Amino acid sequence: MATHFWKIYYFSQMISIVLIGSGNVAQHLIKAFAKSDTAEVIQVFSRNKEAISHLISESKIISDSSQYKVADIYIMAVSDNAIATVSDELPFKDKLVVHTSGSIAKDDLSETNRRGVFYPLQTFSKSKEVDFKTIPFCLEAENETDYELLEKVAQSISDKTFNINSEQRRALHVAAVFVNNFVNHLYQIGNDICLENNIPFEILQPLIQETAHKIESLSPKEAQTGPAKRNDTLTINSHLSFLSDPNQKEIYKILTKSIIDNGKKL
Amino acid sequence: MATHFWKIYYFSQMISIVLIGSGNVAQHLIKAFAKSDTAEVIQVFSRNKEAISHLISESKIISDSSQYKVADIYIMAVSDNAIATVSDELPFKDKLVVHTSGSIAKDDLSETNRRGVFYPLQTFSKSKEVDFKTIPFCLEAENETDYELLEKVAQSISDKTFNINSEQRRALHVAAVFVNNFVNHLYQIGNDICLENNIPFEILQPLIQETAHKIESLSPKEAQTGPAKRNDTLTINSHLSFLSDPNQKEIYKILTKSIIDNGKKL
Repeated sequence: MATHFWKIYYFSQMISIVLIGSGNVAQHLIKAFAKSDTAEVIQVFSRNKEAISHLISESKIISDSSQYKVADIYIMAVSDNAIATVSDELPFKDKLVVHTSGSIAKDDLSETNRRGVFYPLQTFSKSKEVDFKTIPFCLEAENETDYELLEKVAQSISDKTFNINSEQRRALHVAAVFVNNFVNHLYQIGNDICLENNIPFEILQPLIQETAHKIESLSPKEAQTGPAKRNDTLTINSHLSFLSDPNQKEIYKILTKSIIDNGKKL
Repeated sequence: MATHFWKIYYFSQMISIVLIGSGNVAQHLIKAFAKSDTAEVIQVFSRNKEAISHLISESKIISDSSQYKVADIYIMAVSDNAIATVSDELPFKDKLVVHTSGSIAKDDLSETNRRGVFYPLQTFSKSKEVDFKTIPFCLEAENETDYELLEKVAQSISDKTFNINSEQRRALHVAAVFVNNFVNHLYQIGNDICLENNIPFEILQPLIQETAHKIESLSPKEAQTGPAKRNDTLTINSHLSFLSDPNQKEIYKILTKSIIDNGKKL
């Protein structure tokens, strides 16, 4: 019975968070934690009050590092190249300090605090709402207690948390560049080819969505189709002679070669 | 009043279709037309009865070209390299014969019949159901009457029909290779990088879906993010030194170059 009460007491304690930063990631996190029953943003450090004053009470926004409150976690949502400097300049020690970057190692944070990573693997843009529930959080900490705390905080806004070390996170970031940044550039090439030929781009939209959905039930290898997969030299050459833009031609060639080479592997 | 009755009579006449072929596209079309109130598959020509006997009454399947019935439209859903030969060998003339290919010109069909194209721009796999309503049909015909008939047939199974000539269709097919076949290959590279580093591929799924959804409301140019877009040489070089597979390295380089060049254009 006593245990039972203790549990209720324990879970009713909100985990306190200080957020550092006011960009896209910071803003989305403020919104997400506002709905959490487990974790609470008690303070935001930002040199740019206007960026976030519509999201959190102004009394909680600080821009002077002497005003930092004591919190369970300090989440740095600042640009990659600011992470080392900002973490060096924090005026406290032995606290749990995490960054939110996909490409920076945990150990790039200052040693004066306990280090960790709280990386939501998603593409954030200001103009588009994001459903945090489905966003995978890649977590990393120096010890089990810190990891469990991070996990609790992440689970309060997302259904998907993963223990990913810095080496894996580096790999994941490269993989994300392929499936997000590069894929989007291929969409743009498709868009450009349509524009040049007076074809509405919307005609390609269902194909784009279906291509993405297909790999929810098939592996990309099983889902692969097209002239390169069939080694259909006639079509490949006809496409190459159609393309005049040198970058598009090169991209067509190397991706076709890679698909053909890949087919030979198994 | 007379016109009114005539109209009712006219629309109550089902448009009759003979389908030639029994592959993925043929099978999906048989299923789609089974639900249509406007068009009806009265016969399927197939050398492989088993492939479609679960979809249509066996009495409607023929494998001998002497058995062809008279129909309003003959739809050839055969492989690209069979289109010219099969259309040459049809034992009738002056009928409306269309193919379903994205890469073959209308004029590659035999001149003995009225030629046209009925191209559903989608990626079909046997194992996955397809909602035809959202699939864009690219239509082409030799005259307005034939075009209107094709449009009526397409509209009976899809909400999206487009008048696309053979030159535009060729461009569209190249664009589709970029946004479908090549995009899927980038998914596979992402998958491979995950596998090599003991990371579950599902971790990239929400990012993949979000990248595809994003361009429903933003242009690909607006949606572009990442190290190449920011011209972030430090990250680009770190990624290149991470990649050891020569094809992956080449793909990373040329796509990065293309994104950077593209940023300079506007």
